[in-house]
Amino acid sequence: MGALITPMLLHKGVEIVGAIARSPTKVGRDLGDVAGLDREIGVIVEDDPAAVLASCSADIAIVSVGSLVGAMYEHFRRCLEHGVNVLTIEEESLYPWLTSPAQSAELDEIAKLNGVTLTGSGIQDVYWVQLVSGVAGSMLEVESVEGRAQWNIDDFGPEVAQEFYIGRMPEELEQAVENDSWYSPTVMNTLHALVAALGLTVETSDVRVTPIVATADVRSATLAATVPAGRVLGLVDEVRLVTREGPSVEFQMSGRVYDQPTDVDTNDWLVRGAPAPVRLENVGYSTRALTGSIITNRVPDVLNAQPGFVTIDKLPPSRYRPLPLAHYVRW
Amino acid sequence: MGALITPMLLHKGVEIVGAIARSPTKVGRDLGDVAGLDREIGVIVEDDPAAVLASCSADIAIVSVGSLVGAMYEHFRRCLEHGVNVLTIEEESLYPWLTSPAQSAELDEIAKLNGVTLTGSGIQDVYWVQLVSGVAGSMLEVESVEGRAQWNIDDFGPEVAQEFYIGRMPEELEQAVENDSWYSPTVMNTLHALVAALGLTVETSDVRVTPIVATADVRSATLAATVPAGRVLGLVDEVRLVTREGPSVEFQMSGRVYDQPTDVDTNDWLVRGAPAPVRLENVGYSTRALTGSIITNRVPDVLNAQPGFVTIDKLPPSRYRPLPLAHYVRW
Repeated sequence: MGALITPMLLHKGVEIVGAIARSPTKVGRDLGDVAGLDREIGVIVEDDPAAVLASCSADIAIVSVGSLVGAMYEHFRRCLEHGVNVLTIEEESLYPWLTSPAQSAELDEIAKLNGVTLTGSGIQDVYWVQLVSGVAGSMLEVESVEGRAQWNIDDFGPEVAQEFYIGRMPEELEQAVENDSWYSPTVMNTLHALVAALGLTVETSDVRVTPIVATADVRSATLAATVPAGRVLGLVDEVRLVTREGPSVEFQMSGRVYDQPTDVDTNDWLVRGAPAPVRLENVGYSTRALTGSIITNRVPDVLNAQPGFVTIDKLPPSRYRPLPLAHYVRW
Repeated sequence: MGALITPMLLHKGVEIVGAIARSPTKVGRDLGDVAGLDREIGVIVEDDPAAVLASCSADIAIVSVGSLVGAMYEHFRRCLEHGVNVLTIEEESLYPWLTSPAQSAELDEIAKLNGVTLTGSGIQDVYWVQLVSGVAGSMLEVESVEGRAQWNIDDFGPEVAQEFYIGRMPEELEQAVENDSWYSPTVMNTLHALVAALGLTVETSDVRVTPIVATADVRSATLAATVPAGRVLGLVDEVRLVTREGPSVEFQMSGRVYDQPTDVDTNDWLVRGAPAPVRLENVGYSTRALTGSIITNRVPDVLNAQPGFVTIDKLPPSRYRPLPLAHYVRW
């Protein structure tokens, strides 16, 4: 994801002053090279975050590593304590207030102490919250919101594939779900953000996770390995929330290694209620690429925000940025 | 439209203190009766706007009469000078700055002098601006935006049908277009609002208006008359704007008297550019009914806005209002 976002930031006039990675295949190389550009940009990818943060005077760090606040806590803290704003695609941070309230409050305090902002965004921000709550904003009464989306595990890093049990036995995933030790924030925290955008409050939640099992051997690019038939190729993560006010909100997300040439990302939402149900469908949208461009467009919003852990419910809607990003920043 | 919006406002806890109409079929009757409710609400529809505005201490007037700022100027001025905020479905007011700059500046000044706000909204606000600019807000580069929508003339008042030359000879409409004496703000001013939402500026505009001619006699409910074969049943209004920054924005809107049971309102937008083109489609949406609910949801935004002629580019996105509208007003 860092390699995807690098040329987008450069295209919008951002000066990249540092790059951090863990993989030995990236560390020590020029970022332009790692990002697949046809030129070097004079920034060497390093593996010591503290050293990079101390040596460059960055306004903002784009952080894409894991999917949970707990796993990302030290990464975020380190950036914030160096006075660097953080914009992350880590999914729980889209709206972490119900799932990691203590750590989120701590990060909020650290951010405020250092006068910087921490925000989570990505495809969820626009396509699963902003547009869906926009449709709801056209309605008199919302009875329910039902979303369905599909994306390709291979479009993201190997950490995501591992979190999704890709290549493991279906029973392992089922066991983890049964033991409550498997948790994907992609759907749950998106719905928490959506419920907040609708002005509602979560009362109960139901989660149903179903493995998608490979019926033949499938090559996974992100894992650089073959998923044998009978192993986990992906999963369907369904969450249904009932709000205290009555309306229910549900989202069924299928994330898997695409194995058919016709597989495409889909996004389809139905808002039921009065005066009439409205469906919202996006054809041609790409979960991965649009995550990169949404992150790019969000940079000025994070730099302009009040200090703290500022979730998207406190930000203006994501906007198109025809000019270099610096133009939109109130320095 | 007033009859449509009345029960929506009541449903959201709004106290209606006055009602104004011109039609002798409405004046003198209880508003509940005129709006088709099963009860009287104790508000008699009157035809003297000044008397109604003077006798009731209203916070806001919902104004739905004509489609142009010029035609509505006196109505708006009267409300504003009585210290009453105005929320209107009059289409030019969605973004009148390029088409009626002098009158809009005057209304802005009158509103500010009286400490109240004037805003235009309706289906355009959410479905042709907010959602479309939301999709653009997910993209790195926008090359073009192309919209297509279809709506039923019979869903609106007879003034709209008259403005659209329904029942007249196609040559009359063609002549009016040729003489530049026909102008529909529905498409043009929507695109002006969209271009503003994209952070772009209009450079050139092309308009193409094509009559839709009845091939058989068609009954128009709003005209309470039959449109004979060979007469204007509707029209296709296409506008294409090129912006100074490069991207083009076009919208083709077909408004006609529906004559087939399968006719439905459609809304379909394609945003071309990088990283990939994205299509936005709404199935099941109703131009008329959603105009009513969007107006209802916008009431708190207008009451909370700064005084002046405040167009939607200066307002937060339209939001769902689960609670009575008064809950969202900063009194």
